[in-house]
Amino acid sequence: MEHPYLLFLGNAKDQLAAKTAQGVADWRPEWCVGQLRLEGCKADLGIPDLTLPEAAEKGAKTLLIGVVNPGGVMNNDWTTVLVDALAAGLDIASGLHSPLSDTRELAQAAEKHGRKLIDVRISDQHLDTGTGVKRSGKRVLTVGTDCSLGKKYTALALEKEMRAQGFDADFCATGQTGVMIAGRGLAIDAVVADFISGAAEWISPEADPDHWHVIEGQGSLFHPAFAGVSLGLLHGSQPDALVLCHEPTRTNMRNLPGHPIPGLQECMDLNLTAARLTNKNVRFVGISVNSSELDDAARKKYLTETEEKYGLPCADPLIEGMGRIVENLS
Amino acid sequence: MEHPYLLFLGNAKDQLAAKTAQGVADWRPEWCVGQLRLEGCKADLGIPDLTLPEAAEKGAKTLLIGVVNPGGVMNNDWTTVLVDALAAGLDIASGLHSPLSDTRELAQAAEKHGRKLIDVRISDQHLDTGTGVKRSGKRVLTVGTDCSLGKKYTALALEKEMRAQGFDADFCATGQTGVMIAGRGLAIDAVVADFISGAAEWISPEADPDHWHVIEGQGSLFHPAFAGVSLGLLHGSQPDALVLCHEPTRTNMRNLPGHPIPGLQECMDLNLTAARLTNKNVRFVGISVNSSELDDAARKKYLTETEEKYGLPCADPLIEGMGRIVENLS
Repeated sequence: MEHPYLLFLGNAKDQLAAKTAQGVADWRPEWCVGQLRLEGCKADLGIPDLTLPEAAEKGAKTLLIGVVNPGGVMNNDWTTVLVDALAAGLDIASGLHSPLSDTRELAQAAEKHGRKLIDVRISDQHLDTGTGVKRSGKRVLTVGTDCSLGKKYTALALEKEMRAQGFDADFCATGQTGVMIAGRGLAIDAVVADFISGAAEWISPEADPDHWHVIEGQGSLFHPAFAGVSLGLLHGSQPDALVLCHEPTRTNMRNLPGHPIPGLQECMDLNLTAARLTNKNVRFVGISVNSSELDDAARKKYLTETEEKYGLPCADPLIEGMGRIVENLS
Repeated sequence: MEHPYLLFLGNAKDQLAAKTAQGVADWRPEWCVGQLRLEGCKADLGIPDLTLPEAAEKGAKTLLIGVVNPGGVMNNDWTTVLVDALAAGLDIASGLHSPLSDTRELAQAAEKHGRKLIDVRISDQHLDTGTGVKRSGKRVLTVGTDCSLGKKYTALALEKEMRAQGFDADFCATGQTGVMIAGRGLAIDAVVADFISGAAEWISPEADPDHWHVIEGQGSLFHPAFAGVSLGLLHGSQPDALVLCHEPTRTNMRNLPGHPIPGLQECMDLNLTAARLTNKNVRFVGISVNSSELDDAARKKYLTETEEKYGLPCADPLIEGMGRIVENLS
């Protein structure tokens, strides 16, 4: 996947729907020349809006489909602009479940213009079923009360802070955006269900006793669509440490009006119960708060109260940073 | 898939490894002309051992690969005999993850002899991610302390007994053997992980208010390889009733020496906690005991004690039958 990137936001229904693009823009800003948005797009990365010729002019090598939708399917409304991007000399990279080449017009245009269609979510890695056997090395996994609230950002911020504190630490990507940012990893929600925990075991293999794998969590044990992935990832990661990720203003599970967000204690309890199956010594080391919807005073109040209530360091990874949570790892 | 079948047991390492063949032989005996075993095979279905010419002579139309191994992969030792089966005029049906046609010799032989290669585990059914939205109709799901201990048999026995008692009930297959027995369904461990609970929702769709879907469980929430599938199936099935399946002499999770079998109460508690996410009114209605390793006296003692301890009807589906458990559904 060649950068620089043009980040394609399509007709994202809200800012969260553009979380793939946002992740790349936040963690690899030097690779992103601009964004391309269609009519009705409700997301904005705060980087220049470019037309395809402008993006090509600025050296963009790859149009990155940075918008997600439930089920990870291609949107037919995008075909024209994607064909134009190939004609303008850009490759296309996607984290959707369906291969880009399933859209005939794209396959034909890529062939015609000699461009690449890159499917980040599709891997030909051979996987085995999980074993539950203890591996050497240490592991921290981010888990959440819901989807799309900061498990990847928290893991990336943990890696950065751990390295700054002298830890031997590596971020392990488990989703398409993480793979785009890290340049390696595996989209675990795209593997065959029988191999979820086997894939998680492969993602954080045996390592030096003092090495830390910092594993990007997925979904939530409380999300009726994705909890299976979350549980397989939890079992296969056999984490020594967990960081709970939460967005305090959210009341319902994402895209599911009838399903309230679980309580923090309830969420930690169920994660610990499940995680003990493969690591008896697992513990929570901190709570990572996505405070994007809170003002400064409300954030400080929430962090103080939450910290007192649960006896764990609480911080927004993008404001306070992960320093105190990382100190709690030792 | 045309019957009669010749059941191929390969070099099954024990009787459980032949559970696919055993399931078909037990529930569709009229479709099975015999078994074909390779040297070293430790399983026996108690039906005639046939050579390929003998099987063809007796009218067998399909050789059914009835042996499972972790990961569901093809065994290269089988290639010669499978090629011979195609030459003898039989189709081949498989529940392995890898398509039969991935083995070049099989693809060539099928082409040459005009026979079919049937991959039961591979479906082109379009799936969506789960919604958690309540569907009309009622559902009972079998869950287990471990894999391979009777969840499918229990569901099949429940369907039979429920119909006998006048219920409008249908068995829903979720594994390759179940699909081979029922002639429909979906191997849920073979779907892309993102769609596990969506697949479960598809398997037991909206139905008449008094209709019961009797859903075959998979794996165990306590199995570190397969718990993700079990959880997604549990959430997507949104069961009104659960039946716990257990094998009382087993001490460790199948194929995992270091992992003890959970206690019955612990297993029921975790299943209820998880199941309440999509159905607040879920309850256990009985315990189905696989007593194949117990003598008559030990079975009766175990059933009596377990029934007293948990206050639920307990029975071996193949001995006492599911009568009292079904009565407890109303």
